[in-house]
Amino acid sequence: MKQQLSIIKIGGNIIENDAELLKFLTLFSQMTTPKILVHGGGKKANQVLQKMGIIPKMVNGRRITDAASLDVAIMVYGGLTNKKIVAKLQSLHCNAIGMSGADANAIQAHKRPVKDIDYGFAGDIDNINSDLIANLLNLNITPVFCALTHNQKGQLLNTNADTIVSELAIGMSVTFETTLYYCFELNGVLRDFQNKNSVLKNIDSDSYKALIAEGIISEGMLPKLHNCFHALKNGVKEVRIGNLALFDNVNTNYTTLVL
Amino acid sequence: MKQQLSIIKIGGNIIENDAELLKFLTLFSQMTTPKILVHGGGKKANQVLQKMGIIPKMVNGRRITDAASLDVAIMVYGGLTNKKIVAKLQSLHCNAIGMSGADANAIQAHKRPVKDIDYGFAGDIDNINSDLIANLLNLNITPVFCALTHNQKGQLLNTNADTIVSELAIGMSVTFETTLYYCFELNGVLRDFQNKNSVLKNIDSDSYKALIAEGIISEGMLPKLHNCFHALKNGVKEVRIGNLALFDNVNTNYTTLVL
Repeated sequence: MKQQLSIIKIGGNIIENDAELLKFLTLFSQMTTPKILVHGGGKKANQVLQKMGIIPKMVNGRRITDAASLDVAIMVYGGLTNKKIVAKLQSLHCNAIGMSGADANAIQAHKRPVKDIDYGFAGDIDNINSDLIANLLNLNITPVFCALTHNQKGQLLNTNADTIVSELAIGMSVTFETTLYYCFELNGVLRDFQNKNSVLKNIDSDSYKALIAEGIISEGMLPKLHNCFHALKNGVKEVRIGNLALFDNVNTNYTTLVL
Repeated sequence: MKQQLSIIKIGGNIIENDAELLKFLTLFSQMTTPKILVHGGGKKANQVLQKMGIIPKMVNGRRITDAASLDVAIMVYGGLTNKKIVAKLQSLHCNAIGMSGADANAIQAHKRPVKDIDYGFAGDIDNINSDLIANLLNLNITPVFCALTHNQKGQLLNTNADTIVSELAIGMSVTFETTLYYCFELNGVLRDFQNKNSVLKNIDSDSYKALIAEGIISEGMLPKLHNCFHALKNGVKEVRIGNLALFDNVNTNYTTLVL
C-alpha cells in the first residue's frame, strides 16, 4: 500500500492576513501525514513593484513577466513570503524547507513559447523531480514551494501556483497516495455564487460535466476545476476544495472531487 | 576516517560581478567533495532599500536591522541572490538547494541582547543542525546559505556571513573533515597591503600572534582571522583565504591557516 501524502495550495487571501495565515499554518503543522505546501503570490509583489517604481507590463489584460517583474517575484514569493512561512512553521515544530522549482532541481520547466503573446519569463512545467522530493519527505522535511520554476539552463521562471500544485500532486502520485487540497476564501465550489453555504459537497466526472452544462461552474472556477480533474485523471486520489474547514477535522463543509 | 567537506564563503564583490560569479560557480560545481556555499549580501540590498525609499538606520556608524531592512534582506539575500545562484548551479549540474537558517531548522540563533546598542533583528548563532545538513549532503544535495538565521519562534534574523560560515564549519566538523574557504577580492592575507602579491602563504597560531604584534594583520582582516582561528580551535581542519585561485587547482597563491 502506498504511503499517504497531502499537498496543499493556499492563495493570496490567506497569505495577506496574518491571523488567517497563523490559523492555517497551525492546522497544517498538525497534519500527521507527510505534506507539501504550495503558496501563491498575493498583492505584496504589486506593492513592491509600485514602491520600486516598476510598472507591470500588461498585454490584453494579462500580466507579462518581464525581467524586472521576475526579479520582484523572486524577491517576494521566493524570499519574503516563502521564508516567513518557513520560519513560522518551524516555530510550530514543522520542519519546513522553502523551495522554488530550481532548488534541488525540483520543478523543471521551459519558457512558454511565443505564439500571439510573449508572456516573458513564464514557465510551463516539464517534469517534477519526485524522487528527490520523496527523499526530503523521508527525512521528515516539509517542502514549502513558491510559484517559481526553472529551465535547467540558469533561468528562473514564473509559474501559476494552481498549475504547480496539480503537477506536483501528479508527479508524487507515482509513489504516494496523494490528496490535493485547494484552500481559498470560499467554503467550496458553490451551486449559487451568492450563497456561500450552497457548497457542492461531492463532484465526480459526470456531475462535473453537468455542472458546466448548467452554467454553475464558470469563469474563475472553470480553470481551477479543469486542473483538479486533470490531476485526478493522472493518479491523484482525491481533491478537496474549501477554506480552513478543510483541515479542522470537525467541519465537513467543503467540496470533494473524485473521478 | 571522516569524509571530506568543503565550506566556501563568497563575498559581495563576486556576487555583484556576473562574469566573476559564473567563473566561481563553475569552479565550485567542479569540486568533487561534498560542499556547502555561503554567500554574503553585496550592494543589491542597498539599491532596493533606496528604490523603496527606506533609509537604512545607523547607530555609531553601524547598520541597524530594523523591520523594513530585515524584509529587504530576506527579499534580496534569501530571494534574489540566493535563488539566482541556485538556478545557475543547477545549470552547471550541481544539485543546489537555497537555504536560510530557518529552512530545515539549519541555523538556530537568538536576537542579539541589547546592551549599549539595539542592533534590531541581528542574530547570534546558538546551534547548527549538523545532522540534517549531513542528511542533505548524503542525498548529493549542495546547500547554498544566505546570511539569515532564525530564533525558532518564527523570527528571521540577520547574521554576518563570515560568522555563519565559521559556525557551520565548526558544526559540520563533528562528522566531516572540514576545510573552510574564504573567497574574496584579495589573493590572500597580505604582508603589505599595497602589494597584492605579498601573500602570506602559511599562518599558524604562533605566526598569527606575531603578525598581529607587528601590525601586519589589522583592521578588516583582524575579525576575519579571529573567526578563522576560532574555527580551527573548534575542529575545522584547515582554512584557506584568497580569490578564485583557491579553486583552480593550478595556482597556489593563497593563504593557508592551520593551528
